[in-house]
Amino acid sequence: MDDGIAIDFGETGLVPAVAQDAETGEVLMLAYVSPEALERTRETGRAHYYSRSREELWEKGKTSGHVQAVQEVRVDCDADTLLYVVDQEGGACHTGHKSCFYRTVEGENVGEMVFDPDAVYES
Amino acid sequence: MDDGIAIDFGETGLVPAVAQDAETGEVLMLAYVSPEALERTRETGRAHYYSRSREELWEKGKTSGHVQAVQEVRVDCDADTLLYVVDQEGGACHTGHKSCFYRTVEGENVGEMVFDPDAVYES
Repeated sequence: MDDGIAIDFGETGLVPAVAQDAETGEVLMLAYVSPEALERTRETGRAHYYSRSREELWEKGKTSGHVQAVQEVRVDCDADTLLYVVDQEGGACHTGHKSCFYRTVEGENVGEMVFDPDAVYES
Repeated sequence: MDDGIAIDFGETGLVPAVAQDAETGEVLMLAYVSPEALERTRETGRAHYYSRSREELWEKGKTSGHVQAVQEVRVDCDADTLLYVVDQEGGACHTGHKSCFYRTVEGENVGEMVFDPDAVYES
């Protein structure tokens, strides 16, 4: 899996990755990716990220079941940003919305709820 | 323009912003946004970013003419990432592609060329 475009992980060792729904084109979320997260994504076909707050590799949906099957990984012109084109199980957002971008900057809620977060993320 | 959701610009004073084509849903580019860039975007309706390399506010398309008319600015659940939903004039990428994400990580070119960069960015 060491073929292909050399990603510029920069000083932080991370690049932002945009997840987009393969079917609808909806932008679902943005998270950060380490070299290991990218390698695991390409190996398994399931989206992996790196949690900056928990400082650990993170498989999306491992706890909630809301996994992302990655159809394609794209790279931007500078090779410092990734685009994961995915089939999203359930919703991408921990709030229960399909997409994390469920609000306008003015504060209007324009997103679709697809699950009950209290039922999925039990304490 | 100081109403709405308080954006978390964090330690760097910048947040990533994803630009998405309003009509096709295509993810066009990712760049960074300062408080001033966001303010100018909301005031003018044209996408502004902050160039980390040039360390300055930047209006997309000011030189090339490939401006982005912003239909909507969305905010993610953590309020630390923006989504600009835009009408893209010409192409978003300086390489002449419609989208900066014109390659797969394997190196395959899957993007659409929409202009000749040599003609647009004259020396």
